[in-house]
Amino acid sequence: MVEIIKKKRDGHILTADEIREVINGFVSGKIPDYQVSAWLMAIFFRGMNDEETAALTDAMMRSGDLIDLSAIPGIKVDKHSTGGVGDKTTLVLGPLVASAGVPLAKMSGRGLGHTGGTLDKLEAIPGFDVSMSADEFVEQVRKHGIAICSQNEKLVPADKKLYALRDVTGTVDNISLIASSVMSKKLACGADAIVIDLKVGDGAFIKTIPDAEKLAEIMISTAKKMNRNLIAVITGMEEPLGYAIGNALEVREAIDTLRGHGPEDLTQLSLELGGHMLVLAGRVATMEEGMVLLKDNITNGSAFAKFTELVRIQGGDVSYVTDPTRLTLAPHAVEFRSDRKGFISHLSAMDIGIASAKLGAGRETKESSIDLGAGIVLKKKVGDYVDSGDTLAVLYTSDLTLVAKAEEYLREAYTFAESKPEKQPLIFRTVS
Amino acid sequence: MVEIIKKKRDGHILTADEIREVINGFVSGKIPDYQVSAWLMAIFFRGMNDEETAALTDAMMRSGDLIDLSAIPGIKVDKHSTGGVGDKTTLVLGPLVASAGVPLAKMSGRGLGHTGGTLDKLEAIPGFDVSMSADEFVEQVRKHGIAICSQNEKLVPADKKLYALRDVTGTVDNISLIASSVMSKKLACGADAIVIDLKVGDGAFIKTIPDAEKLAEIMISTAKKMNRNLIAVITGMEEPLGYAIGNALEVREAIDTLRGHGPEDLTQLSLELGGHMLVLAGRVATMEEGMVLLKDNITNGSAFAKFTELVRIQGGDVSYVTDPTRLTLAPHAVEFRSDRKGFISHLSAMDIGIASAKLGAGRETKESSIDLGAGIVLKKKVGDYVDSGDTLAVLYTSDLTLVAKAEEYLREAYTFAESKPEKQPLIFRTVS
Repeated sequence: MVEIIKKKRDGHILTADEIREVINGFVSGKIPDYQVSAWLMAIFFRGMNDEETAALTDAMMRSGDLIDLSAIPGIKVDKHSTGGVGDKTTLVLGPLVASAGVPLAKMSGRGLGHTGGTLDKLEAIPGFDVSMSADEFVEQVRKHGIAICSQNEKLVPADKKLYALRDVTGTVDNISLIASSVMSKKLACGADAIVIDLKVGDGAFIKTIPDAEKLAEIMISTAKKMNRNLIAVITGMEEPLGYAIGNALEVREAIDTLRGHGPEDLTQLSLELGGHMLVLAGRVATMEEGMVLLKDNITNGSAFAKFTELVRIQGGDVSYVTDPTRLTLAPHAVEFRSDRKGFISHLSAMDIGIASAKLGAGRETKESSIDLGAGIVLKKKVGDYVDSGDTLAVLYTSDLTLVAKAEEYLREAYTFAESKPEKQPLIFRTVS
Repeated sequence: MVEIIKKKRDGHILTADEIREVINGFVSGKIPDYQVSAWLMAIFFRGMNDEETAALTDAMMRSGDLIDLSAIPGIKVDKHSTGGVGDKTTLVLGPLVASAGVPLAKMSGRGLGHTGGTLDKLEAIPGFDVSMSADEFVEQVRKHGIAICSQNEKLVPADKKLYALRDVTGTVDNISLIASSVMSKKLACGADAIVIDLKVGDGAFIKTIPDAEKLAEIMISTAKKMNRNLIAVITGMEEPLGYAIGNALEVREAIDTLRGHGPEDLTQLSLELGGHMLVLAGRVATMEEGMVLLKDNITNGSAFAKFTELVRIQGGDVSYVTDPTRLTLAPHAVEFRSDRKGFISHLSAMDIGIASAKLGAGRETKESSIDLGAGIVLKKKVGDYVDSGDTLAVLYTSDLTLVAKAEEYLREAYTFAESKPEKQPLIFRTVS
């Protein structure tokens, strides 16, 4: 192992065998974590080329069980978001593409830090069960065209162990490590093709377009080397997506969107990503065709019906979906008002995400418990005019002593300008 | 800790407090080794400036007990060699400077890999005991002006732990880490001033003069910041020092040198380093004066008498010193002959060191046992003319099956030229 560390340290290219040796040795405990962390730091400085990244992805993917989706007919397309604030896209997109006949077999994660997670959001619906066996998972997708569950513990153990180590050793921020982490999980879940929602900006872990492009390119090259299709859509995460941040609040907004009266950005993003998924699945020939089909499925109610079906088959109480006002919010609603006037020129997704977490909606560590009813509803976003005293946001919490800390972040979140600013595009680029 | 890792990773300068926090946390077990190894790799890539290196040296020095040499009058000067092949200088230099009234309180190490260690060499003298308590150590130096013992386990635990980690994580080769490792040990031993024999070349771990100069400069700057004097003498280690490699063999050569008929290079190096030590100790005003005094002490027998005294007080059988032919060599002596003719233009200290280790004189790992009687005596060195069939070296071993492997390295060790090559200087530069 020390020779492999030195080889990478000195800028040489590792063979697939060497990379597999590290991953297998690490998972089995044969290679100690202190050697792996030094290796990761060497990768941080030296990088990995496309071949190495593909080899790493492959080794990680094979470190545990693989889900076999071959019982489900057609091309299985998975979707992954690199994470942002207010990102409830999966709740909309999943039922949407499933309603168009494209099966969605999705394993999701939980929220951490300033970002939320799909599993937490779904659990805001009483009874909704995110745990299932691999067989149940495949069977549900085969039968209903959709399943959203927590990642099987036996899948990609290398990623869990490696990410935990990267997290505490300052080696998270490397595109090859990021790409292999994301892709090994998706591929182990049996995806034939993947659409990546690559978020960029203040609330994302990727801050610049060039960084996002680099990550997109390495993901596409890795997918190619592994004979899979991948499309990366680079999307903005300067301000939160939609207006709702927090679990129950986001479910309400997702339902609104599935019913055709959601926020424009969330609706648009769901249609775009869905359009790509339909193309990759071979369901339609063009993006445009796909988007028209999906828009129809919102209008004609079949997308919402698919969501209701998903909730029902996973044990959720459907009455909370048909009447989302029943979804319990935290008891205290506190208005956050502006002490300035002008156009909002910047609204920090990161600050809003942290403020929401401070109100109880997020986790500081994996072990923290969360308040599914807590969160923030934005009343104004970038480009909106605000008068002094106007309500910028409503804060939901079960504990009023948390408000002061959240407000600290909220005060930092807003920047004002005298003239109407140009809005950042929602979608920057599609890389394929 | 993860913030400190990231700070260094991103090229920032760590504060003394941050460095102390890492070292103390590592020694106490509060900071896990996987974080420290990532930090070390970040240091490998980013380096440390003079302030950071001094802070690291100080934190390491203070990680355990400190030897108090204040009971011994005068300025205490220690000597350290960065390690080479055939380097028995301490055996000569110690008694030499002690015979001139400059106390030598020296803690030494054991051999590893292709290099030997002073403790092993002394143990080739039957009865010689290298273990003593800190109090015994100080008392012996006070009374006899000299003590050479193994490093106290309670001294600089940070270095032991850190070096063990560096060794298996590819983070040995960084000048700040090297400098702090060497200096923290010397300073914890109570040295007021240090002479570093900075070996450069094939058999040393530093391969080039610029690298040696960089290391010398960071050591001098670190010493200054810690209010100590330090002189670094950059010396050649392309070919072995002297003719003998192997423990008992080297003791014989050291005794020859103390008696005035040792190899020229070993004699010269001992006088030069000793001259600096006498100056640093305030014993003489100039190097020249010091060297004359030391040469006299060889001629008049007082240097050898001091060595005999050292052996006696540390339990060694003096009869082996007065008659060094009694020092047991390995039973088999095999001549290694040249199959070529010409002038030796290069003689690889590394190959000779490894060959000697293969014969039983060295350790592959810290746990290996060694054969104190094994080793190599060179018959020809760089610049000598060799006829085909001439004996290049005599190999001593207890196990004839080891010879073939040693000869593999020996065959690689020699390079020949048609004309007499220019000899590399013994001493390149003194940096102070």
